[in-house]
Amino acid sequence: MKFIINKNELVSAISIVEKFVPSKTPMPTLAGIKFLATEDSLFLTATNLEMGIEYKIYGEDTGLLVKEKGNTVIESKILSNIIRRIDEDIIEFDCNENSANIKSSGFNMVLPCFNVMDFPEISKKNSLKTIKLKQGIFKDMIRKTIYARADEFSSRPQLTGVLVDCKDNILNMVALDGFRIAWSYVELDDLAEDFKVIVPGYTLLEISRIFKDEDESSFEFCYSAGSVEFATENFVITSRVLDGDFIDYKMIMNIEPKLVVKVDANKLRLAVEKAGIIARESSAGNLIKFNIAEGIIEVQAEAESGRISEKVACSTKGQEMLIAFNAGFFLDALKSISEPEIRLEFSDEAGPCIITPVENEHHKNFILPVRLKGEKL
Amino acid sequence: MKFIINKNELVSAISIVEKFVPSKTPMPTLAGIKFLATEDSLFLTATNLEMGIEYKIYGEDTGLLVKEKGNTVIESKILSNIIRRIDEDIIEFDCNENSANIKSSGFNMVLPCFNVMDFPEISKKNSLKTIKLKQGIFKDMIRKTIYARADEFSSRPQLTGVLVDCKDNILNMVALDGFRIAWSYVELDDLAEDFKVIVPGYTLLEISRIFKDEDESSFEFCYSAGSVEFATENFVITSRVLDGDFIDYKMIMNIEPKLVVKVDANKLRLAVEKAGIIARESSAGNLIKFNIAEGIIEVQAEAESGRISEKVACSTKGQEMLIAFNAGFFLDALKSISEPEIRLEFSDEAGPCIITPVENEHHKNFILPVRLKGEKL
Repeated sequence: MKFIINKNELVSAISIVEKFVPSKTPMPTLAGIKFLATEDSLFLTATNLEMGIEYKIYGEDTGLLVKEKGNTVIESKILSNIIRRIDEDIIEFDCNENSANIKSSGFNMVLPCFNVMDFPEISKKNSLKTIKLKQGIFKDMIRKTIYARADEFSSRPQLTGVLVDCKDNILNMVALDGFRIAWSYVELDDLAEDFKVIVPGYTLLEISRIFKDEDESSFEFCYSAGSVEFATENFVITSRVLDGDFIDYKMIMNIEPKLVVKVDANKLRLAVEKAGIIARESSAGNLIKFNIAEGIIEVQAEAESGRISEKVACSTKGQEMLIAFNAGFFLDALKSISEPEIRLEFSDEAGPCIITPVENEHHKNFILPVRLKGEKL
Repeated sequence: MKFIINKNELVSAISIVEKFVPSKTPMPTLAGIKFLATEDSLFLTATNLEMGIEYKIYGEDTGLLVKEKGNTVIESKILSNIIRRIDEDIIEFDCNENSANIKSSGFNMVLPCFNVMDFPEISKKNSLKTIKLKQGIFKDMIRKTIYARADEFSSRPQLTGVLVDCKDNILNMVALDGFRIAWSYVELDDLAEDFKVIVPGYTLLEISRIFKDEDESSFEFCYSAGSVEFATENFVITSRVLDGDFIDYKMIMNIEPKLVVKVDANKLRLAVEKAGIIARESSAGNLIKFNIAEGIIEVQAEAESGRISEKVACSTKGQEMLIAFNAGFFLDALKSISEPEIRLEFSDEAGPCIITPVENEHHKNFILPVRLKGEKL
C-alpha cells in the first residue's frame, strides 16, 4: 500500500477515529487503526468490539493519491502523536506486511504493523429501519437526556443506555435511573416506521463529541437486529445495542399538578448550586429543600458547616409546599435546559416534580423527591 | 466585624488568597482565610506555614464600607465556592466570634468561624536587602529557570528551590538538578546590595501564577534572615527560604566549544518532540541522538516500536559530532525559550551542551549528555 495525503486531512481523520481505539485491550491489533487504500479512497477503521468507526477520505481537497492499493494496521497512539507534529503539508505512506514507512521532507519514520487478518470487521448490515435527522438536533437531544441514565454499576444494565424510540413519526430519546427521567423528542420530516432500541451511553457520548452543535447536515440512523449505525458522508459508526425494557415513561410522567411554578431558570440554578455546596457537607446527604409560597421559592440547605437560604421570585399557582430533592439530581436537570424560563409541576410532597422549559414542551425532566420526616410547612 | 463590599472585588481577592490555604492540614484554622477589617481597609490572610499572603482591599472602587472593625477566620473552600455564585453586586458581612452571616438581596448564609487567636502571624520582618523589579520580568525569569530544579525527592533539598543571587547589580536566577542548569539574569536599574537566597520552587510557582505576563508594574523583593517577601501595592507574600549551597554555575557553564550550531528553535523543538515519542517507548530509556554534520542536525530515536529520524537544516562551525541526550531534558530547555533562533555549543561527546537564544544572551541552558557505548559517527 502506497499513498500520499494532506497532513491536516489525515490528522483530523485520525483524531476522530482514535477515540474508538480501546486504551487497554487483550487483542494487540485493536490498539491499531486499519488503513485501507482503494483506487480513489482511504478508509480508516477502529473498533473496541462494542462500537466501531469507518472513516472515508476521498476527493481532490484531501490531497489523496493512491499509488498502490492495499491495507495494514498501524498502532494508533504513536502514529497520532507524531503525525500531528509533522511540519509539512504532504505525508507519504509506504507500507508492506510488517512495517509502515512514513515520510515527509527531511522526516522519516518506520513503525511496525499488525496483521490485517486479525482486525475485526466493522459490520455494516442491511438495516431494517432508517431515519434521516440533522446532526445538530440529534446532538442536542443527547445533551438533554444522557445525564439521567444509570451509572455503570446499575443492576439493570439497559438503564446505562438511552432509549431511542420512534413512534407515529416522533423520535423520542429517554434516559432514566430509577430516581429521574429525561425525555426529549422531535417530529420527523419524513415518514418512518416504528422501532425501539436502547443505544449504549458511551456510543451516544462519542456521537455527541463528533457531531457539531447546530449542524444542519443530515445523517442516517439505521437500526438492524442487535446493532445501530450512524452514517454521514464521511463515516459510519456502528454500535451494539442493549437488551431489556424501559418502564412506560409517558404514563408515569403524566401527573396532575397541585402546584405549578414558573421561574427564571438561571436564577434557580444559581440558588440550587450554592445550596448544593452546603448540602454536600451535610451528614444527612445531598439534600436541598424548596419552601414554596405565593410568588417565592426559598431554596434551603443546612449542614454542620453552615446553613444557606435564597429567595427566588417566581409565579405560583396552587397550594404551598415544602419539598426536598437530591441537590445533584435537580442541578443536572437544570443544567440540561438552555431556555430562559422553566415550569415546575409538583403533584404533592411525596410525588415527582416535572421540569419543562416554557418555550420547549419537547424536553421534560422528571425527578422524585426525598421524603422529609416529621417536617411541616 | 461588619462590612459591605463589591462582590467582584472580594471574589478576585479570595481567588488569589485561597491558593495559599493548605488542602490538608492538622490545624483546622489554616483551612480558613483570616479577615481583618480596619477603618478603611479589609485584609485577607492565608498561610500554610511555609508561605503566606496578606491581601489588602481598600479604596472607593472596591465598594468597601467598614461598619464595625474586627477580625475572624472563615473556612475558605465553601466561602469561595458560594461567593463566586452570588448574583448581586454588593455583599454584606456581619461576623461575631462564632459565626459569619453573609447576605445579599434574597440570599442569606451562616458559616461557623475559627478562633482568630489560633491563626499564625504572617511575618513581615524588617528586611535587610530590597530590590525593585517589574512583575512581568520576574515572572519571565521564573518561567525560564524553574523547570530545571530538582524534584521533591532530591537528596539535596536546596535544589528543589531556585537560587536568587544579586551581585554587582545583576540579578541571577538559577535552577539545577545535577544533570542540567537553567540560568536567567537581568541588570537592575537601581543600586542594590549583594545577596544570595534559595527560594522554594512552590513559592515561585505561586508568584508566577499571580504576576501577569509583561506587567510593567513593580514589586519589592525583600530578603531577611530565613525568609523572603514579595510586596506589591495590594499584597505581601512571605516565604521561608531553603538552606544549602549551589555549585558555582558560572564556572561550569564556561566551556570552550568544539562545535557551534545555530538553528531554528521551533523546528528543532518539533523534531525533538517527535523523536521523544519513540524514545519514551524504548527499553534503553528516554534517549535521542543528534548526528551533526555540515549544515544538518539529524535527530534520531529508536525503540522496539519503531524508529524515527528528522533532518533539520542549521549552520555549523567546528567538528562533526554524534551525541545523545535525555529527550525530556532537552525538550524542557527548548520549551523555555521563546526566541526564534538558538545557538547550541558542544564541548565534546561527553561534555555539556549549552543552549542560548541568539537574541538573548541573558538566558542559558546547560545539559549533560548521555554517554553512548561503542558508537561511532
